[in-house]
Amino acid sequence: MISDLNSIFSNTAKGMKRSAIRELLKLTQRSDIISFAGGLPSPESFPIEQLKQISCEVLDTEGAQALQYGATEGDNRLREILVDLYRKDGLNININNLIITTASQQALDLLPKIFINPGDKIICGLPSYLGGLSAFSTYGAKLVGIKLDEMGMRSDLLEKELAQMKANGEKPKFIYVIPDFQNPAGITMPESRRLEIIELARKYDVLIVEDSPYRVLRFNGEPQRTICQLEGTGQVILLGTMSKLFVPGFRIGWVVAHEDIIDKIVMAKQSTDLCTSAFVQKITAKYFEKGYFEENLKFIIDSYREKRDAMLAAFRKYMPEGVKWTEPEGGLFLFLTLPEHMNAEDLFKIAIERKVAFVLGNVFHCDGSGHNTMRLNFSFMSKEQNEEGVKRLADAIKQLM
Amino acid sequence: MISDLNSIFSNTAKGMKRSAIRELLKLTQRSDIISFAGGLPSPESFPIEQLKQISCEVLDTEGAQALQYGATEGDNRLREILVDLYRKDGLNININNLIITTASQQALDLLPKIFINPGDKIICGLPSYLGGLSAFSTYGAKLVGIKLDEMGMRSDLLEKELAQMKANGEKPKFIYVIPDFQNPAGITMPESRRLEIIELARKYDVLIVEDSPYRVLRFNGEPQRTICQLEGTGQVILLGTMSKLFVPGFRIGWVVAHEDIIDKIVMAKQSTDLCTSAFVQKITAKYFEKGYFEENLKFIIDSYREKRDAMLAAFRKYMPEGVKWTEPEGGLFLFLTLPEHMNAEDLFKIAIERKVAFVLGNVFHCDGSGHNTMRLNFSFMSKEQNEEGVKRLADAIKQLM
Repeated sequence: MISDLNSIFSNTAKGMKRSAIRELLKLTQRSDIISFAGGLPSPESFPIEQLKQISCEVLDTEGAQALQYGATEGDNRLREILVDLYRKDGLNININNLIITTASQQALDLLPKIFINPGDKIICGLPSYLGGLSAFSTYGAKLVGIKLDEMGMRSDLLEKELAQMKANGEKPKFIYVIPDFQNPAGITMPESRRLEIIELARKYDVLIVEDSPYRVLRFNGEPQRTICQLEGTGQVILLGTMSKLFVPGFRIGWVVAHEDIIDKIVMAKQSTDLCTSAFVQKITAKYFEKGYFEENLKFIIDSYREKRDAMLAAFRKYMPEGVKWTEPEGGLFLFLTLPEHMNAEDLFKIAIERKVAFVLGNVFHCDGSGHNTMRLNFSFMSKEQNEEGVKRLADAIKQLM
Repeated sequence: MISDLNSIFSNTAKGMKRSAIRELLKLTQRSDIISFAGGLPSPESFPIEQLKQISCEVLDTEGAQALQYGATEGDNRLREILVDLYRKDGLNININNLIITTASQQALDLLPKIFINPGDKIICGLPSYLGGLSAFSTYGAKLVGIKLDEMGMRSDLLEKELAQMKANGEKPKFIYVIPDFQNPAGITMPESRRLEIIELARKYDVLIVEDSPYRVLRFNGEPQRTICQLEGTGQVILLGTMSKLFVPGFRIGWVVAHEDIIDKIVMAKQSTDLCTSAFVQKITAKYFEKGYFEENLKFIIDSYREKRDAMLAAFRKYMPEGVKWTEPEGGLFLFLTLPEHMNAEDLFKIAIERKVAFVLGNVFHCDGSGHNTMRLNFSFMSKEQNEEGVKRLADAIKQLM
């Protein structure tokens, strides 16, 4: 037995903590608990019969390729399908601007791998997606948080921060934003704010990473153009994923970026996992080709809209004075803010006793703030559970008050 | 457009090179070329009909779980199956000693992530698996090569190196070995050498990483106990993969290690890709449960034995004086050494003209040596192609001589 295992871990590993969310999820998996904690899509949306048919077709017609090693860049058919979708949407890219990753989380790991030297800064929202923050921290990035308002990341504070960094001879490696139905805040950036952020990125010569897992999951309101479309791959790296639009169990995501950046990501991916499963990529390509994607997306959107509406109606019905929440136009999450003097951690204990769970908002704040906030998922539970869960939560809040 | 993209890449990314092997593979994919360059299993070994049946069964009986996010540690059924196999083989581990990774390459990325600070040393064979060397380098590890003899890594040179490091107040983070049918050398370490390596690891208080992708692919000779079994998880980390025993297209590998190490790997994997596809893990578990694994393994072993024999027979028949090769008892590769004054790179050009390809041996040498060596794969091409390819290669060598 090695004499002192802890002493030989890397500095990175010494600083690693188990993901707060995933540990909480274990707590909340008791079947009697209504859990708004996870970020899971609803299993009702999984197209099981179609996948049986397609899996067999892929094995029959291209089994030898589907089961072999694949190209690091990803399956060319799937890449072309995604490129076509973006082009139809007005984003002028070609296949060399897109790499398939082992879900979006891998993209969030490869980006700091190719950009971050320990101590480099990344700007992110307060709050922002925990999986991004953790991945960036693993590479020694220093996270600088910028508060959101009802239009997303505040451009006035962003400019102040960038100007101050410049005065200190510093520059962040990128600005990390989730402009559509932000995780966790549920806020969507209108085009005017997107343009302000782009203007600042240009002025201060900084890349923007646009994480976009939910954009097509819009229930109402006008679709916003992506920051990448408004500016182009010279300044913007766009991340996408099938996890919320199809199934998370296939682990398929992608990065759209300048060719030179894709080139570095390909090299970084080679030593990270060589290639993403060709089998699941080919099934996904066929899923698009058969028109199932568009067909099923409608079902997902309708179903999540109903679930969101049930949750919002319950908020209005049950929540006591002083509690605020966001009303997302799409996605999977909304954000709840308790009165300033209250603490979501205290609430969590009472809520679990009352058999309802959520995620503490402070884990999404890189500066440790957000003690009175929490994230609630509305896609996984049923409409009825959403209503009942909010009722229990409101009771817990009243008890704590 | 950002002003100077190249200046903002991380030091790691600036040092990245496209994998020499994968770039070569592109060159050698012309259909008229007999390629010994890849490390691909034979598609004849892919159990397509069984996979159609199992995929449908998994979707029918556990679709909601198979298509959802899974645990970072991996599918518990698959973990238990693998643990049972190891226990039957005499390695006393439990489920907390094993994590599923997105193929073995991910393990080779997560290990330096949890152990390496830039400048830390890793000891590896001369030659050694390129995918390991690249992954270690990405984290800033300094690779120290130890020559092999016909019994694998030389323990006398290893002791000399460890003693010298100790004298300098240094210690490597681990010793990386591939004891069975080594990639690329095709050499197997007998138990006596394994015990010597273990003895040194104990004496100098250093971990051993035992990369074991081929061990059960043995064609003849006596199976050797794993280093992990001979010593235990207190000193040894064991890597396994389904890529060569089942299909590479599912990207399933695993790490066996001390619980505290598995714990760190779990945390590192959370921010790397969250979890490996539950779908392919559940298919793999069922493949074992139905007894298909053992059944098909026999076919793979018989088929690869014939292919190796065809290649070795052709070597004896065609190769000119002065050319040496290893005679592996299993696995996928053998290693060829030209006379010292010859250069494999010069040979490569002639060989491509003669429509046969291989991988230059120097890419497997962390010190840049091995100019007169090359790796040949015998699993992917047919017996007939193996014979014809060796004939072409011998002609090319004679031409260069």
